[in-house]
Amino acid sequence: MFEQLGLIGCGMMGGSFALAMKRAGLVKRVVGYSKSPSTTEQARRMGVIDVEAPSALLAVSGADIVLLAVPVAATEATFKAIRHLVTSSMLIMDVGSTKRDVVEASRRVLRDHVGSFVPAHPIAGKELSGVEHADADLYHGKQVILTPIEKTQTGHLKRAQTLWEALGCHVQQMSPDSHDAAFAAVSHLPHVLAFALMNAIGNQPHGKDFLGLGGPGFRDFTRIAASDPKVWRDILLSNRVELVEQAKMFQRSLLNMLQLAEEGNGEKLEEMIALASQARAQWHMGRKK
Amino acid sequence: MFEQLGLIGCGMMGGSFALAMKRAGLVKRVVGYSKSPSTTEQARRMGVIDVEAPSALLAVSGADIVLLAVPVAATEATFKAIRHLVTSSMLIMDVGSTKRDVVEASRRVLRDHVGSFVPAHPIAGKELSGVEHADADLYHGKQVILTPIEKTQTGHLKRAQTLWEALGCHVQQMSPDSHDAAFAAVSHLPHVLAFALMNAIGNQPHGKDFLGLGGPGFRDFTRIAASDPKVWRDILLSNRVELVEQAKMFQRSLLNMLQLAEEGNGEKLEEMIALASQARAQWHMGRKK
Repeated sequence: MFEQLGLIGCGMMGGSFALAMKRAGLVKRVVGYSKSPSTTEQARRMGVIDVEAPSALLAVSGADIVLLAVPVAATEATFKAIRHLVTSSMLIMDVGSTKRDVVEASRRVLRDHVGSFVPAHPIAGKELSGVEHADADLYHGKQVILTPIEKTQTGHLKRAQTLWEALGCHVQQMSPDSHDAAFAAVSHLPHVLAFALMNAIGNQPHGKDFLGLGGPGFRDFTRIAASDPKVWRDILLSNRVELVEQAKMFQRSLLNMLQLAEEGNGEKLEEMIALASQARAQWHMGRKK
Repeated sequence: MFEQLGLIGCGMMGGSFALAMKRAGLVKRVVGYSKSPSTTEQARRMGVIDVEAPSALLAVSGADIVLLAVPVAATEATFKAIRHLVTSSMLIMDVGSTKRDVVEASRRVLRDHVGSFVPAHPIAGKELSGVEHADADLYHGKQVILTPIEKTQTGHLKRAQTLWEALGCHVQQMSPDSHDAAFAAVSHLPHVLAFALMNAIGNQPHGKDFLGLGGPGFRDFTRIAASDPKVWRDILLSNRVELVEQAKMFQRSLLNMLQLAEEGNGEKLEEMIALASQARAQWHMGRKK
């Protein structure tokens, strides 16, 4: 389907994409670039990429598909680095967890070629980073959100959809704004809550002892707290408006429950818990409603 | 080791205990009682108990070991129901997630026989309740906290420790107060956070759509939100003082992170995330640092 993938960012997300594309026979050759030369070299040694490119620009040269798998905050700089070789027949995608900022960066930098860019967010990840954790199965069975804008070429949008589906993903389209609000709610805020809980416990005199008592519930609840600090710093900063909005609604819900507990209002408290419990019991990953 | 277990509450927790005791050959006969006769009957049909008792009192009659596996709020009433048949040679335990209130109830009701009671909290559970989810492996490999008081008989304490260890558990002792503070931090507050998040999202106009986008991180983070409403109402009410204390520290930690995001202070924000991330990466269930 594609001749050459230009992969910018050969970490866990980008590396997994390259491996999945190769295994599915969707690409003949992968030319990769990472900021750190040792990562690029390791990616080549692992067979994640075929050729090491000495710069982001040269990774794009000759590619008919380009994937940016860099921290969201590095997106604009990456667009700048490659724009001189971007053509309108090249499909460019990213894998960023926020979309409004990425779309704005693409408008500012790619200008006439912005139609080549199909903003993408595969809902997949691990709390582990680095090419050594690249995994051809990472995206299989997962959802991918595409957030096209008016100038996006329909041909590229279709090819992007076909490609992700061929990798076993469920694809849906949303506006960049709806995307960012939704992911502030179901991903970014939960990460902040998990980070904040770890720190709140860790800062107590007996915090270490307390942590030793955490059971399976604690293990699962805090799993995302082990996520990569740089990646999450960028996500929280770039989606801060929606994050704070979601945090406000969360705070109201939290304070309400705490107040019911303090007042000893068991009936109302049980009602609140039952609402949450039913909603969660009915929830299934990747299924609406 | 024991002749007859009097099981009061034949649900998931109590049923799992009976199954584990039988499989380990630690008890010859289990006499069970549940508030709902259909549960007791189902427990007998499933082989969880051998004999149905028509009352809590009669479940205790002739037992050398008694397990209370009832919601924490029902502990005092259960003690009252059985106290006329409690003897000083009988080992009585509970499995409640809070300990100060249980200990106080035992003091008030059991009086001279309070020394027979060894308050126990096995750190095991599922978000599923009911005897149909009873599982002989539930406690294996898990931690069990015993919170003896001054009047607890050392003989009973030792037998309790030996018993749980024979079921494959790691046993440690704490004061009831330390126990409640620790579990407010690593269990009760996380549950409230998960409940509050589900409700905060569910109450939004597009909440249902947002929930459909939750990925593996959301799945794990909210798993405990599906917990039993009555059980958790009782836990939150009975440990409200420590819960509110932990919630205050959590709020400070959360507001701090949100403010750093709003101010665009990436450096400090990354520092906070890195602290949490390191702490979580180094954490292993059941292991003290």
